[in-house]
Amino acid sequence: MADMMLGMKRSHQCGELRKENTGSQVTLMGWVQRRRDHGGLIFVDLRDRSGLVQVVFSPEVGQEAFTKAESVRNEYVLAVTGDVKARPEGTVNANLPTGEVEVYARQLLILNAAKTPPFYIEDDVDVDEMVRLKYRYLDLRRPEMQRNLIVRHKTAKAMRDFLDRNGFLEIETPMLINSTPEGARDFLVPSRVHPGEFFALPQSPQIYKQILMVSGMERYFQIVRCFRDEDLRADRQPEFTQLDIEMSFVEMDDILSLMEKMVSFIFREALGKEIPASFRRIPYSEAMGRYGSDKPDLRFGLELTDVTDVVKDVEFKVFAAVAKGGGQIKGINAKGCAHFSRKEIDELTKLTAIYGAKGLAYIQMTPEGPKSPISKFFTDEQFADLLQTMQAETGDLLMFVADKPSVVAAALGNLRLELGRRLNLIDPEKLEFAWVVDFPLLEYDAEEKRYVAIHHPFTSPKDEDLSLLDSDPAKVRAKAYDLVLNGVELGGGSLRIYHRDIQEKMFSLLGFSQEEATQKFGYLLEAFEYGTPPHGGIAFGLDRMIMLMMGRDTIRDVIAFPKTQSSSDLMVGAPNTVSPKQLKELHIKLDLPAKLTGKKQG
Amino acid sequence: MADMMLGMKRSHQCGELRKENTGSQVTLMGWVQRRRDHGGLIFVDLRDRSGLVQVVFSPEVGQEAFTKAESVRNEYVLAVTGDVKARPEGTVNANLPTGEVEVYARQLLILNAAKTPPFYIEDDVDVDEMVRLKYRYLDLRRPEMQRNLIVRHKTAKAMRDFLDRNGFLEIETPMLINSTPEGARDFLVPSRVHPGEFFALPQSPQIYKQILMVSGMERYFQIVRCFRDEDLRADRQPEFTQLDIEMSFVEMDDILSLMEKMVSFIFREALGKEIPASFRRIPYSEAMGRYGSDKPDLRFGLELTDVTDVVKDVEFKVFAAVAKGGGQIKGINAKGCAHFSRKEIDELTKLTAIYGAKGLAYIQMTPEGPKSPISKFFTDEQFADLLQTMQAETGDLLMFVADKPSVVAAALGNLRLELGRRLNLIDPEKLEFAWVVDFPLLEYDAEEKRYVAIHHPFTSPKDEDLSLLDSDPAKVRAKAYDLVLNGVELGGGSLRIYHRDIQEKMFSLLGFSQEEATQKFGYLLEAFEYGTPPHGGIAFGLDRMIMLMMGRDTIRDVIAFPKTQSSSDLMVGAPNTVSPKQLKELHIKLDLPAKLTGKKQG
Repeated sequence: MADMMLGMKRSHQCGELRKENTGSQVTLMGWVQRRRDHGGLIFVDLRDRSGLVQVVFSPEVGQEAFTKAESVRNEYVLAVTGDVKARPEGTVNANLPTGEVEVYARQLLILNAAKTPPFYIEDDVDVDEMVRLKYRYLDLRRPEMQRNLIVRHKTAKAMRDFLDRNGFLEIETPMLINSTPEGARDFLVPSRVHPGEFFALPQSPQIYKQILMVSGMERYFQIVRCFRDEDLRADRQPEFTQLDIEMSFVEMDDILSLMEKMVSFIFREALGKEIPASFRRIPYSEAMGRYGSDKPDLRFGLELTDVTDVVKDVEFKVFAAVAKGGGQIKGINAKGCAHFSRKEIDELTKLTAIYGAKGLAYIQMTPEGPKSPISKFFTDEQFADLLQTMQAETGDLLMFVADKPSVVAAALGNLRLELGRRLNLIDPEKLEFAWVVDFPLLEYDAEEKRYVAIHHPFTSPKDEDLSLLDSDPAKVRAKAYDLVLNGVELGGGSLRIYHRDIQEKMFSLLGFSQEEATQKFGYLLEAFEYGTPPHGGIAFGLDRMIMLMMGRDTIRDVIAFPKTQSSSDLMVGAPNTVSPKQLKELHIKLDLPAKLTGKKQG
Repeated sequence: MADMMLGMKRSHQCGELRKENTGSQVTLMGWVQRRRDHGGLIFVDLRDRSGLVQVVFSPEVGQEAFTKAESVRNEYVLAVTGDVKARPEGTVNANLPTGEVEVYARQLLILNAAKTPPFYIEDDVDVDEMVRLKYRYLDLRRPEMQRNLIVRHKTAKAMRDFLDRNGFLEIETPMLINSTPEGARDFLVPSRVHPGEFFALPQSPQIYKQILMVSGMERYFQIVRCFRDEDLRADRQPEFTQLDIEMSFVEMDDILSLMEKMVSFIFREALGKEIPASFRRIPYSEAMGRYGSDKPDLRFGLELTDVTDVVKDVEFKVFAAVAKGGGQIKGINAKGCAHFSRKEIDELTKLTAIYGAKGLAYIQMTPEGPKSPISKFFTDEQFADLLQTMQAETGDLLMFVADKPSVVAAALGNLRLELGRRLNLIDPEKLEFAWVVDFPLLEYDAEEKRYVAIHHPFTSPKDEDLSLLDSDPAKVRAKAYDLVLNGVELGGGSLRIYHRDIQEKMFSLLGFSQEEATQKFGYLLEAFEYGTPPHGGIAFGLDRMIMLMMGRDTIRDVIAFPKTQSSSDLMVGAPNTVSPKQLKELHIKLDLPAKLTGKKQG
């Protein structure tokens, strides 16, 4: 049986003891990181959230404590009262912040015992993530996981401090809302009180925050849970957290410059890092043109070069046909890669094929001169022109994709990222922020045979493009902006439509019948008629931001209790079956695929 | 068509202009509270979140602005640039913080027009709450609603500031968790990925916060949404917000004194009110005994007096039988109420009947002497004894209930509250905080024929009562505490069980089979074996706290978008029907009561 605390009070955190504490008596509480017996003494590294300190049990200082300490194992929970002493010369541990001192124990309480954990409680532990998730309570004891959650806390705190000082109110919006037709798939919640009806969990508080602007709240924010029932390819979670912001009486510049100040503040407060006070702004068309991406990684060059005009008249049929058909031919100059093997070039070709490229033309600028399967289709003049346009030098590898612009961008944009990694062009310490602006408002979805909103249906068209809404909707640019960091989208937002007629036109362009628009968004359309201020906002993905700040590879490492890729909580075992009584009360029954029927009843 | 903002920047908030601003040019943006035409001028009260200021349109100052202003109606959205001038003597409005100045408009933009709202945008508007909820975006423009949300923001901010300074980390716990057998009814979320399985929305993050203590996070908090699918009698919401706190290495006093500091800090920061630095502590048995409630309103006296011993031998059969059967006879002395009419006493009798009392005996201490239907059953000596015990004086009304203790407490506790209101004993400005401590751990549920946890199954028994767990579970007191303010429970918490064997015994007392306990809580039982620190915590209901702080009668007034009593969102129309495709994807179908079938398909 374990000891009770008996009024013992912790006086210090383990990790904060320094030489200055020498001579004072302290009471520490924490976990046994490890225990060693040496020279008739017992040494215990005691760990708490703040760090480690060495505790020494000596029969001469505390006989009872020493005897008790003999039973102590890893991860036991201890309370120790003792004296801080300077470590003898030669035993100082320079790698440990507390390494100049040790605590000689007078009194020991064993507050709880511990079985041997399934993995070591230390950084960089080599253990399967499924085991870490099942034993999350042990995984979260590891210092690197604690650091992630501490920075997450500090980041959220910094966001709130900044926004509070700038006149924003944090206002909570409902979690049980209505299912809407646009966007990703909703999670549904059957209503017990209203048989046959369902709530939906919010994909974002988009409409509520706009309603708050109609309400005259002027500056709103919320750090809020959102939900999307999508397949979890890539690094996604069914529930995620966003910093959601909306302001009235502003134009785009007001929002962007305030957000730049906020992001600087966050990085300073939570990480102690200084970042630039303002970020470059890149139009969408430029980002796609130069980097093949609307979230370009600006830590390195390797930009795309448009050579359509240069090659449109060559005898190479592929280039000619693409140029004639309104497509593009663009290239990347991989400096110093002329030596790439056939195998390496094949790998790159396969990579571009994933993104739809039908081939990857290339020119190797060897010391013996250019070598290329396509050179024979060029006149000398045409070839020289191409090399000059690509700024080719001996040692370079030039690669080209010819296709419609979206395929060229995706193929070369991803080729660029791959080359950046392979050639070690990416400085992991660098933070390259940029705003991508002037997004298209709509894109045509060939599958659904209708326009879909690139941001969402509430994004305002640019004033100068309003007239194109009728004549050429795909050309309309939006008052939308994304914040990009190191090739990752940190957040995005827009100025909103705040007139009923424009919002109705937008719904109609998106293929909503008037009845559908009224049924799902009638209250918003009506609200716009009662004095709606111009407004706009932005939302940041908190999980992804912390992941980038901490240099992690997955958002699961910055979420205390994440779901697996198959959307399960391995620790608590969710989701799970429920009782027939619960289903009955909710007026639903199971409708299982044939092979599962009978297995899940109850 | 409305004006665009055209780079115009707001320089001031309407409500902040003072005499000191006289002579400066300002740009304001806001809503038209009202417009008056007088003496060839147009006066507009312009409103934003900060308050109102009077704007004057004069043809001499701004002809174009004046002409535009003629089209302005209530709730139009304006941007005005103009000069701040002192109001002429005699026109100063002392009731308005900006009442010494007015703004002469040089330029006016009409940012949006407005239809006439269905109700006035002002405090104390007399309009049905259903209309307010449907047009919530207009209701929230009313200054009193904005104040509620502003104080709510400030309160949450103060909580976070205080807890951050005291070493707490805000850590987010999942919203999609598993359904557990104990507690209220869960909201369920069908899983698309796992056919036939369901997530549950959390009733509280109880287990996750305990797991965080096992994880060594030491001090956790979260302002978090919670869900209970219960019938919304009284002032409840299906989703509500709580401040959730957990700490390791502490005993009860540590938690209580820290929370006292926090509550003081909140009231100072959010309301500018000073409250006592510590709160009285009342054992549960004393609260029930003296006030008939475990959340006593301490703003007034009118305590209950136990007269069982005094009356147990009188000839009045009811008293004798109750006393003999282990029941209680208790009374209240309503000072100065001897004159109550038969009708008034009947009303009070009916009130006590709601809580199970079979009758309300009374004695009227009239100037002519005591008058009572029960006096005949008493000897003179017995009656004198009773009057003395009740400290009866001429003018008093003594009332008695005889029953089992729970009925006596409920009946007289509520009678006490009713008398407090009727006799104007309650000072609405008073804030009477108290901790209620030493709750019973369990109570026997006659219907379910088992013990149920008074707080929850994770609450620790008091050390000195541990041995009673086997012999007399109902006698075991818990390390639990509630914070009560003016008769309302603000929050409650406990020290937790942190040993597997005690937790298992608790589950078994609650009637869980070992299999059930392992299936639902096995991971927690297992976690307790890997070095769990002593820990405890508390949770506060944020909605209710703000309601009390703002002196409102319903939590709906302090929630931006509340649900109705029938669990609907009248503005967005939730819950709602969903498409058959959505149900199919979730592997469920409707199972409607016969009379509804067919109506809700689609």
